[in-house]
Amino acid sequence: MSDNNDRYVIGVDFGTLSGRAVVVRVSDGAELGSAVHEYTHGVIEDRLPGTAIRLGPDWALQSPEDWRDVLRVAVPKALAVAGVPASDVIGIGTDFTACTMLPTTADGVPLSELHPDRPHAWPKLWKHHAAQPQADRINAVAAERGETWLPRYGGKISSEWEFAKALQVLEEDPETYRAAARWIEAADWIVWQLTGVESRNVCTAGYKGIHQDGRYPDDDFLSALNPGFAGFPATLGQDLAPLGGLAGRLSVEAARWTKLPEGIAVSVGNVDAHVTAAAADAVRPGQMVAIMGTSTCHIMPSDELAEVPGMCGVVRDGIVPGLWGYEAGQSAVGDIFAWFVETSVPGSYAERAAEAGLTVHEYLTSLAERQAVGAHGLVALDWQGGNRSVLVDHNLSGVIVGQTLATRPEDVYRALIEATAFGARVIVETFEAAGVPVGEFVVAGGLLKNAFLMQVYSDVLRRPLSAIGSDQGPALGSAIHAAVAAGAYADITEAAAAMGKRTQNAYVPDSTRADAYDRLYAEYRRLHDHFADGGLLHRLRAIRNEATA
Amino acid sequence: MSDNNDRYVIGVDFGTLSGRAVVVRVSDGAELGSAVHEYTHGVIEDRLPGTAIRLGPDWALQSPEDWRDVLRVAVPKALAVAGVPASDVIGIGTDFTACTMLPTTADGVPLSELHPDRPHAWPKLWKHHAAQPQADRINAVAAERGETWLPRYGGKISSEWEFAKALQVLEEDPETYRAAARWIEAADWIVWQLTGVESRNVCTAGYKGIHQDGRYPDDDFLSALNPGFAGFPATLGQDLAPLGGLAGRLSVEAARWTKLPEGIAVSVGNVDAHVTAAAADAVRPGQMVAIMGTSTCHIMPSDELAEVPGMCGVVRDGIVPGLWGYEAGQSAVGDIFAWFVETSVPGSYAERAAEAGLTVHEYLTSLAERQAVGAHGLVALDWQGGNRSVLVDHNLSGVIVGQTLATRPEDVYRALIEATAFGARVIVETFEAAGVPVGEFVVAGGLLKNAFLMQVYSDVLRRPLSAIGSDQGPALGSAIHAAVAAGAYADITEAAAAMGKRTQNAYVPDSTRADAYDRLYAEYRRLHDHFADGGLLHRLRAIRNEATA
Repeated sequence: MSDNNDRYVIGVDFGTLSGRAVVVRVSDGAELGSAVHEYTHGVIEDRLPGTAIRLGPDWALQSPEDWRDVLRVAVPKALAVAGVPASDVIGIGTDFTACTMLPTTADGVPLSELHPDRPHAWPKLWKHHAAQPQADRINAVAAERGETWLPRYGGKISSEWEFAKALQVLEEDPETYRAAARWIEAADWIVWQLTGVESRNVCTAGYKGIHQDGRYPDDDFLSALNPGFAGFPATLGQDLAPLGGLAGRLSVEAARWTKLPEGIAVSVGNVDAHVTAAAADAVRPGQMVAIMGTSTCHIMPSDELAEVPGMCGVVRDGIVPGLWGYEAGQSAVGDIFAWFVETSVPGSYAERAAEAGLTVHEYLTSLAERQAVGAHGLVALDWQGGNRSVLVDHNLSGVIVGQTLATRPEDVYRALIEATAFGARVIVETFEAAGVPVGEFVVAGGLLKNAFLMQVYSDVLRRPLSAIGSDQGPALGSAIHAAVAAGAYADITEAAAAMGKRTQNAYVPDSTRADAYDRLYAEYRRLHDHFADGGLLHRLRAIRNEATA
Repeated sequence: MSDNNDRYVIGVDFGTLSGRAVVVRVSDGAELGSAVHEYTHGVIEDRLPGTAIRLGPDWALQSPEDWRDVLRVAVPKALAVAGVPASDVIGIGTDFTACTMLPTTADGVPLSELHPDRPHAWPKLWKHHAAQPQADRINAVAAERGETWLPRYGGKISSEWEFAKALQVLEEDPETYRAAARWIEAADWIVWQLTGVESRNVCTAGYKGIHQDGRYPDDDFLSALNPGFAGFPATLGQDLAPLGGLAGRLSVEAARWTKLPEGIAVSVGNVDAHVTAAAADAVRPGQMVAIMGTSTCHIMPSDELAEVPGMCGVVRDGIVPGLWGYEAGQSAVGDIFAWFVETSVPGSYAERAAEAGLTVHEYLTSLAERQAVGAHGLVALDWQGGNRSVLVDHNLSGVIVGQTLATRPEDVYRALIEATAFGARVIVETFEAAGVPVGEFVVAGGLLKNAFLMQVYSDVLRRPLSAIGSDQGPALGSAIHAAVAAGAYADITEAAAAMGKRTQNAYVPDSTRADAYDRLYAEYRRLHDHFADGGLLHRLRAIRNEATA
């Protein structure tokens, strides 16, 4: 492997607002340079670009040209920053938000580029939530028919996923639906752009496309949803490519965009969360990677297949070939802290934070971390953004219990941090109760920067935390996949061991605090179970919706 | 009564931080002038004045000299402001916070003026909460012995009341206890100062002194608490004076202090909340007066005797002679809104309020009042200061349910206002369910200035609100009592009808909003009943207390 010391791979992470490219050394995963390109159109939520055509509530679109721009701008820039000659680059890998999908022609031309005035022709971003009626029908019909794939998704198909989104198009704009020769995840479309060859990755097909046990839902089921929906899977492609596989070779046109050598390896597409497991060298059974940012995504390979209540999905080969890949999630984590700081912290706190040269988050943390466990007298439910795992109910909402006239902002802030840690513990315990052991808890994502929060998680979970050693995990993970596709390593596991970065025991639990948290967790759990049926919270939501209608 | 047009009475209201005197015309209750005197020592909570002697947690004392200063300063000043000659004043009446009590010599000299270095010699303010262990024992022993007076207090004697406070002195400073020839409410002590004659009013004896059916608790019971406590009632006086009665004549010394004519009528002492009923001309059966400020006190005469769960007390002749007087309360109301504004509203709101020339309360109200009922999706429990009625549990705490990432400060502010209105509805419904009808809901106190809040109460209670026509209700009420004591009217009812001020139908319910609130109230009630057992909230309090010990 000595020649890997001067061989490099490029990882490109396509996020919600921007794309990031990173140049990585094949031998050891050293990140030598990176560049970010903000999407010109960002998230398209109000009206179609360059038109007066308004979008409905809960719509969220993106522009394919923005994604191409990342290849044109961020990749060459990262290479320049790294000071690495393009000729030493042996592969490129990508990851994407998901489910972000688009209808195309048989050649992969986005319909939005042919019919820019049709909203349904545009790529639907993961957080397009306007297909909820379709998702509700998918779930009702699947439950009624006893579809065996339903428990693989914790009992619920999300409105964010492929079948709900496509069914919305069929029902609201049948002409566009009929014009779509292909429906494709952006994760696969961008690889098509790089290689000129269509491929479909096993990960999005499984987690977002209901591909289980070698097949998509059958036409009987699809016809029960809508007679016109039969045959939809034919537009998705049938031969799935394994993660870390070689999707194709860099095309002439893509080489021109990226300034990379024509013909280098392009790895199979992947999802941002899932590819991070490789970056953390956490692709063995029982290594649960929590990517903690505005929300938290939990990714874990396992050799056990089980139906874990409330998981987002379990997919064969969904993280690494040969293992079952589990995904779970917490709908809002960093979002909750941001909401609290924006709406619930007095100006005097902002002033004192500024005087101390701290952000409000840092200042609140500095006050909260002085407290003994339980001193604030509070317990909260972290459902301000709904609950993904384990209740799969986005109509739940937050609860805060125990305020007195002496309660201060740092008390509530700490209680909210703890609530998200308790939520994580519920997920870990649910996996283990279902027979899927969690051996190691590995943290990645932006919240790693809050050491106090990490310590709370370690104490609440009563286990050491490992920490990823990169702050651009998805891009590093994509680069690792590129190295595998280029043949520099035998498989993802070997590549991750060499190139991934993980500090074990980055945080270790304190048994006194952990004991104290056990008592608070018991209260959280009781509150969780009391409100889990959604009775009160759903009625409040219904009252709200009627009042604001 | 024509000569009442140029006859005047003085009402003096002794509050927690200051005393207020008002000059009132006997014929019609016109308030011609008033003056406030702030207590020099305010609330004594940290150390004894002029010493290094520290007080324990939850202590709260006052200085008798501060009270005398009100007579010396505020009364002459009010007279001067009113432009009324002292010779036209025919009487003076007073009201006080309660239970605020002190030990004195047989002549009424406060022990604190003989032993200023002994904490227990000082007057204990109503909010002295350090006698909780004694109150707990009183309640346990009374319940065990089946004392018939216990249900007259909703099943609980408060740590704020006479027997708990005196028992604390006996057990912590027996020498001071033995030195006390008299234990007296400040309400009666100030009358003693004015007249030179000791008297005891029926109101504080009943509500704060456990005087029921013509007697205090017997020595058997008191000995069971502490053998040294037998005989305590002998220090309280036995002959109770009726409200509105003549306690005595203004003494030479008090005439010198107040610049009023020697020998004018001085009415029997009273409590600030109870005397307000007269000021609102609401002393007939079924007129519930809610004095709404930092907390709310509910006062209602009735011809029915019933054991209302969670009431503060029912006392024969306790508001007006000849009727049962009921008292109930909400521990924190305005305090909750103040706490929220202080701790939970961002600087940007304060800035926008200032730009609009509004207080933060007014600005939040202006935002909240635009919402449709239920549009915020929230329901809260108003227990941030515990729950007085109907749960009688100050170890309860607040609950807020339904927050999403879109919840804004005005949403929570409105939900907290509604929560206190729901709390009031629980009290009204509890009275009616116990067979004590509430015919009219009359509002007094500082929160009257928030018209939106008043409308919420009217809608939630589904009944019109009457509003007192004075913003110095207690002082006006005391002046009315003085007029009765001076013989200008036959009784309180007649005097209140002439001098009290009440606007009926000041707020009337809107049936559409009331229907919408019925749905939210049903949710409040469920939440109330779920948390009423105190299980979770008591455990959180216990965890907090251990963590901060």
